[in-house]
Amino acid sequence: MLSIIGIGPGGKMRMTLEAIERIKNVDVIVGYGPYIDYVREFIENQEVFQNGMKGEIERCKKAIEFAKEGKEVAVISTGDAGLYGMAGPILELAQDENIDVEVLPGVSSAFSAAADLGAPLMMDTALISLSDLLVSYEKIKERVRAAAMSDFVISFYNPRSKGRTEYLKEAFEIIKEYRKENTPVGIVRNSGRENFSYEITTLGEIDFKKVDMKTIVLVGNSTSFISNGRIITKRGYDL
Amino acid sequence: MLSIIGIGPGGKMRMTLEAIERIKNVDVIVGYGPYIDYVREFIENQEVFQNGMKGEIERCKKAIEFAKEGKEVAVISTGDAGLYGMAGPILELAQDENIDVEVLPGVSSAFSAAADLGAPLMMDTALISLSDLLVSYEKIKERVRAAAMSDFVISFYNPRSKGRTEYLKEAFEIIKEYRKENTPVGIVRNSGRENFSYEITTLGEIDFKKVDMKTIVLVGNSTSFISNGRIITKRGYDL
Repeated sequence: MLSIIGIGPGGKMRMTLEAIERIKNVDVIVGYGPYIDYVREFIENQEVFQNGMKGEIERCKKAIEFAKEGKEVAVISTGDAGLYGMAGPILELAQDENIDVEVLPGVSSAFSAAADLGAPLMMDTALISLSDLLVSYEKIKERVRAAAMSDFVISFYNPRSKGRTEYLKEAFEIIKEYRKENTPVGIVRNSGRENFSYEITTLGEIDFKKVDMKTIVLVGNSTSFISNGRIITKRGYDL
Repeated sequence: MLSIIGIGPGGKMRMTLEAIERIKNVDVIVGYGPYIDYVREFIENQEVFQNGMKGEIERCKKAIEFAKEGKEVAVISTGDAGLYGMAGPILELAQDENIDVEVLPGVSSAFSAAADLGAPLMMDTALISLSDLLVSYEKIKERVRAAAMSDFVISFYNPRSKGRTEYLKEAFEIIKEYRKENTPVGIVRNSGRENFSYEITTLGEIDFKKVDMKTIVLVGNSTSFISNGRIITKRGYDL
């Protein structure tokens, strides 16, 4: 069995029992080097295959190889393995192989960040990655506009990298066509992990320099407000 | 401390360690009756306050009362407490009370269902509830259209109830304006719980009678396909 496992945002506290149990009981753990550290305490006799950034597809192929040898394999992804994770490529590569593959869900980063901020999601929500490695930037902006115009709460994954310093700013310009300057915005750094911190600001006042790849950025909708250092989106109840 | 806790889709295996630890160590657990059963094995000496459907706001107020008496309180929501859950109303009601409130994230139902189906999410995704108890149906349809036209994978929460037999069908009519009839659709019943099952069909062939409030419905995007009884959405890698 090859298990593709979402380990949540990083700390063991936001891992599921299912993920922990599975990782403890496999023969081989496969993952991106820095993420292996997140599950270090559950590693005893398991073999570990790790590699670096851009080694995703090598990891997928290696995991399938191990499974074909009859080994129990856990491939770990941070957050949820099915969103911007390894579940898709592995299932695609394993289509014609005679192995069992399962996917175990995890707490995706936007949900972890949202909990840290209070209750910014609450209602219909759109999750968008600003990385254009695998999607065109035009398509990304089209999705930002669609989500903005129909009042989705929006969570941005991969909001800003060294090579993409302006995308979030441009996304915010699109959102501002539909939402007020004082719309709440949350920037959460290292949610669920060491050195966790967050900041609450607005669409009009955000300092984009505070955003990098270790952050998730959430933008409220027309009913969101800031109270006592928290973002709250109204659920619609008559309170 | 009042903790608002997402317990995941139902079974203990998809709960986080953090949620379990917290529930074990509070004085009072507050929740919707049937959901209390999901955490029964972690209840020993904790007091339990439970009530029925439509008792949401009574539960919120009761939880705040307990916290004001100095008790440690856990309010449980299924899935993630911050999405269609209790986090918002409680934070709103507790604004002027002198109590500490925290939100602990959980695996939201769409992610649990997606893992069961394979890898349907993978890319930018929109989560939409078809319940119009707290949102107008016009607004819901506007969001369905926005998500459909910009190629978001779409997850439907509360897809069909006795009083809303036609909404999912009407949502599908909107989606069909933008996507092919053979777009993969997954119907997942009781994800993570007893009597779990799922079915994979398409936008054109779905039998709406198989959908009810115990199901989550996922609709793939333009790159999704069905393979070996799984839905896979392409991540964009050159495999």
